Amino acid sequence: MNISLRAQNMPQSPIRKLAKYADAAKRNGIHVYHLNIGQPDIKTPQCAIEAVRNMSHDILEYSPSQGTKSLRTKMVGYYAEYGIDLSPDEIIVTTGGSEAVMFAYMACLNPGDEIIVTDPSYANYMAFAISCGAVVKSVKTSIEDGFRLPPIERFEEQITPKTKAILICNPNNPTGYLYTKQEMFQIRDLVKKYNLYLFSDEVYREFIYTKRPYISACHLEGIEDNVVLIDSVSKRYSECGIRIGALITKNKEIRKAVMKFCQARLSPPLIGQIIAEASLSTPEEYMEEVYDEYLSRRNFLIDGLNQIPGVYSPTPMGAFYTMAKLPVDDAEKFCIWCLSDFSYEGQTIMMAPGNGFYSTPDAGKQEVRLAYVLNKDDLAKALIVLRKALETYNSKQ
Amino acid sequence: MNISLRAQNMPQSPIRKLAKYADAAKRNGIHVYHLNIGQPDIKTPQCAIEAVRNMSHDILEYSPSQGTKSLRTKMVGYYAEYGIDLSPDEIIVTTGGSEAVMFAYMACLNPGDEIIVTDPSYANYMAFAISCGAVVKSVKTSIEDGFRLPPIERFEEQITPKTKAILICNPNNPTGYLYTKQEMFQIRDLVKKYNLYLFSDEVYREFIYTKRPYISACHLEGIEDNVVLIDSVSKRYSECGIRIGALITKNKEIRKAVMKFCQARLSPPLIGQIIAEASLSTPEEYMEEVYDEYLSRRNFLIDGLNQIPGVYSPTPMGAFYTMAKLPVDDAEKFCIWCLSDFSYEGQTIMMAPGNGFYSTPDAGKQEVRLAYVLNKDDLAKALIVLRKALETYNSKQ
Repeated sequence: MNISLRAQNMPQSPIRKLAKYADAAKRNGIHVYHLNIGQPDIKTPQCAIEAVRNMSHDILEYSPSQGTKSLRTKMVGYYAEYGIDLSPDEIIVTTGGSEAVMFAYMACLNPGDEIIVTDPSYANYMAFAISCGAVVKSVKTSIEDGFRLPPIERFEEQITPKTKAILICNPNNPTGYLYTKQEMFQIRDLVKKYNLYLFSDEVYREFIYTKRPYISACHLEGIEDNVVLIDSVSKRYSECGIRIGALITKNKEIRKAVMKFCQARLSPPLIGQIIAEASLSTPEEYMEEVYDEYLSRRNFLIDGLNQIPGVYSPTPMGAFYTMAKLPVDDAEKFCIWCLSDFSYEGQTIMMAPGNGFYSTPDAGKQEVRLAYVLNKDDLAKALIVLRKALETYNSKQ
Repeated sequence: MNISLRAQNMPQSPIRKLAKYADAAKRNGIHVYHLNIGQPDIKTPQCAIEAVRNMSHDILEYSPSQGTKSLRTKMVGYYAEYGIDLSPDEIIVTTGGSEAVMFAYMACLNPGDEIIVTDPSYANYMAFAISCGAVVKSVKTSIEDGFRLPPIERFEEQITPKTKAILICNPNNPTGYLYTKQEMFQIRDLVKKYNLYLFSDEVYREFIYTKRPYISACHLEGIEDNVVLIDSVSKRYSECGIRIGALITKNKEIRKAVMKFCQARLSPPLIGQIIAEASLSTPEEYMEEVYDEYLSRRNFLIDGLNQIPGVYSPTPMGAFYTMAKLPVDDAEKFCIWCLSDFSYEGQTIMMAPGNGFYSTPDAGKQEVRLAYVLNKDDLAKALIVLRKALETYNSKQ
């Protein structure tokens, strides 16, 4: 009676390893600044909260496996504002963006099939691939190049008869990179040439801090049937806990296949759908305030990081993460040390070791991922702690 | 670019095939009595609804991947009342019982591994097995024997070196059967002898209408590390839409493996957990009323069915389903005919064809599953419609 190989092979999240050290630090009365997670401190829109409080259901019943028609209809309007033309039938509501990724793999990939991602990438893309028996191949991007897309030949080199899909995250978690029009066209051409699926995770589209236009995979002409858009309301409205995402595709066969998995799990959360639907009426001012807040946090954090001797962070163009290079040999060791052996005025920081986001062995060993989901006062204190921690860590070596 | 083999192999739910016919009937103004689904018409407890309305969260954030500590702690008290002794650590909150089944398979079974279920069984056990690449072997039970457990040798015959688990649903969906102490001991001995996992879906434990004691897989001594309990608050509190279930096991290795899948999908629904926790304080009177209601519906439906010439239904001991044998050659054809070609005084009935619950080809072809989730007035009308439908169907043949 052994646990499954797939369970044995599931990667540990780059953050989980550190959790016990953070818990111990807290037990010792140390304040931990959490720069490690994508849980924003931003309030959920009031209209979303009100929608739950005023709920009139007296039976909290199953909703349709595809998601409620009213939510999907309202989503059509949302996407239209981004120049993405959809019908409600083309939208499948999922239990978070996570389920959308999982069902895209389940519906499109056989065990042994390969999927190409950029390296570093969101660690759970790998976890879901292992769940499905799919194999992740990666194309390395680097902090020195600001994580821009490598020459398209690097992708082409990874293509084998087993390759079925390319997965991009745009704007990118963990790098904050936003693909250019030219890069998106290169991806399109490749997808077309090899007739691949293009899974495009665009959950951070609200958070783009550059004048560069947002090019959705859904904007790319000629590969409409190849594209599967992965989405979620989690980050957009700071409602990660409601677990509402979406899988969107013009391809009927994929939708039909995905719906089989949707039907097996019966329905996405009912109340989450009520909240998500209400959230789509969030006033423009809320969105602007949140945007301005993240923009100013980003500027503050990146400036602060680059002022610490030996630290380098490119300027992320979107999302609310950055990858920073630290003047240490092994950032994971340093992150653990910050939690287990260091504090400054009763405070320390928790960061996600960068290596965990890479599938290339030893890549990103000097890097950490930082999420700017704390307010600027806390970011300022966290930056002081980081500076002191690096000084102490490097002086004792 | 083809959809995956697993998507191609996913069975269509016994009900989905009929949905278009039901929709068409409704469009033609015919009232359809839905005896086909497990969506109760019972109101969710008021305390659960209040809990959402009074929610004080202003950020709907991620909850822990294992589920909130407060919910898990309260669940410990619930299980203690059933003589199941647990600690909060042994409970993993899932997105519905569905996710609990999926994660049990994911954590314990390799592709090609076999799992033995009784036939007929809940159709999605098979769907999740296909998702994971596991193979379902079945041991046939029959309506003539009231769906009791066949001699344990029938199970033993199915065991191969690939066999890793037995899955039971107790009380049973779709049959309403409740396993006796002796049957549970036989299962225990088999699990022990071959060192198998025992996945036990016990979501209907509140609905047992016989004096026979409820024996949980967790009550079985000597196989504590083999048992994985699958649970859900959906049916118990008529809150199927909140998507809160649980995977419970004393086996640390399984929990560790399951948690990897939990972490990949980040968290179960936050608001569902708030509701589930409040539901655990549902007054005894609510539970008694609901119980009495189902009991009286069961008696009414089973009596009514057995009074129709040629119809036979055993008396289900638990849950809120029964399998009934109809005097027709092909119950699926008859179910479709009821929706597409028949109505009586502007009404018709929708039932789930029995064959879809069997993995044995052609088994249960004369059977239908009926859920007694409608009130007695509606059940009475549905019974009249069924009688008339059978008369008409058989007279025209």
